[in-house]
Amino acid sequence: MATEQDWFLEKFEPAGTAFGLRLGEKLHSERSDFQHIDIYQTDTFGRLMVIDGAVMLTDRDNFLYHEMLTHPALCLHPRPTRVLIIGGGDCGTLREVLRHDIVEQVTQVEIDERVTRLAEHYFPELCERNDDPRATLLFDDGIAHVQNAADSSLDLIIIDSTDPVGPAEGLFNRAFYQQCVRALAPDGMLVQQTESPLLHLDLIRQVHGSLKAEGFAETALLHFPQPVYPSGWWSATLAAKRGPLPEPVAARVAAMEADSRYFNAGTLAGALAQPGFVARALAVD
Amino acid sequence: MATEQDWFLEKFEPAGTAFGLRLGEKLHSERSDFQHIDIYQTDTFGRLMVIDGAVMLTDRDNFLYHEMLTHPALCLHPRPTRVLIIGGGDCGTLREVLRHDIVEQVTQVEIDERVTRLAEHYFPELCERNDDPRATLLFDDGIAHVQNAADSSLDLIIIDSTDPVGPAEGLFNRAFYQQCVRALAPDGMLVQQTESPLLHLDLIRQVHGSLKAEGFAETALLHFPQPVYPSGWWSATLAAKRGPLPEPVAARVAAMEADSRYFNAGTLAGALAQPGFVARALAVD
Repeated sequence: MATEQDWFLEKFEPAGTAFGLRLGEKLHSERSDFQHIDIYQTDTFGRLMVIDGAVMLTDRDNFLYHEMLTHPALCLHPRPTRVLIIGGGDCGTLREVLRHDIVEQVTQVEIDERVTRLAEHYFPELCERNDDPRATLLFDDGIAHVQNAADSSLDLIIIDSTDPVGPAEGLFNRAFYQQCVRALAPDGMLVQQTESPLLHLDLIRQVHGSLKAEGFAETALLHFPQPVYPSGWWSATLAAKRGPLPEPVAARVAAMEADSRYFNAGTLAGALAQPGFVARALAVD
Repeated sequence: MATEQDWFLEKFEPAGTAFGLRLGEKLHSERSDFQHIDIYQTDTFGRLMVIDGAVMLTDRDNFLYHEMLTHPALCLHPRPTRVLIIGGGDCGTLREVLRHDIVEQVTQVEIDERVTRLAEHYFPELCERNDDPRATLLFDDGIAHVQNAADSSLDLIIIDSTDPVGPAEGLFNRAFYQQCVRALAPDGMLVQQTESPLLHLDLIRQVHGSLKAEGFAETALLHFPQPVYPSGWWSATLAAKRGPLPEPVAARVAAMEADSRYFNAGTLAGALAQPGFVARALAVD
């Protein structure tokens, strides 16, 4: 019988919910320049990375998040050759982006180099494409990076951040989106993790409103399961400078299906289907 | 700041995960003839019913489960006039079934009358259709009820049970499915809650295999979010005596959409989309 000490428990205070995983040994713990990072072996979810007490990812279920944050946008954009990832220090998003042959260059701008160094050590499968010649890993401030990007120099910006408090707060506001619009080419798209449709619908509505106010013609909400995040039901917001949202490129979807565990044509369509309570909330703006 | 005592915490020992809700007051606690039942006020999820330490439902998110356990089958079946619910003591499933005008009679067979009496008191909105003249509430053993049902006397059997351990174990085996096949008319369908696609894929595969072995021509897995159940990602298994699975009746889907919070044509199609890892696992049988 497990004792209290054998569990990792995260309380999501604003949501009033908690999530836990039964633990094996603690593998690593450190305070980086930016945050506290812990790595555990869990009993049933493989390895677990925790930042400032919040679950970042586990071996067992990160495929859901990483596939659904990347492949929908990369299959919908007409020609996503130049990609920027903000955050994403575990490199799982980078790995999925690099599965697309059409991508010619992808830059990842993670503020905390230690997250990536620890991922290389403890989550090597997520980092298996880090040496791809198309990839550039920078350890810098993502907001400043976008401000310094040339006009129309990017096709897709992927914002793979922590929750919109603390370091990531500046990634969820109009000033940042304005710089994204400027740095994106006319066909450009942005995709951003936007928390739980059940718990954070006000945030999602606000993000969609801000994106449209800054010049994105179209936004869409993607739904997918993510068991280790609050409610187990997560979302990403897709925004396109040019509307209407194009149909997915079938050949690219098919190319991803065989080796994906979650993403395919059916789950992509399902992710874009809006439950009534979400559609009604987003229709207000 | 909440203290340890302010949280309800459920550890799913086989899965190695835990889920918690911040509590207000405890409203009720009793041992019925079958199980221990607790009712709490939570801080952010409304009221909570717990049976033998396991979350059954909350005010805030039960709509997901109740809509997705009922409307897909009721919209796919060509003419579901005679419906049987096994379990479902909180009456939320019954309420959704009775929203369909085509339903002429629905019998609910819950083993524990106390669950229903407590739902009437603490979850009155779930019980608001219990007085519908088409509804019959029985408090009896669901397995025996199906055994005693006349051949071809039912159009749809909905199995709204607890986990497949203890009282509900007999609802997940071939002997029970054999009786369901017999009691269902030639167009008959069955739908059963079948746990989490991430955590219980072996069970799901076994259920699909057993249903087909007992004479169901077609099975399909429905996916939907259910934040208070393990992983937050839940499933129901639909089985049809006659294949192939029909298209949903558009008029019935449309009639449900306006007043549903989750279910609509898009989320129905999305629920039926199979992630690769699930499709590959179910293709084995």
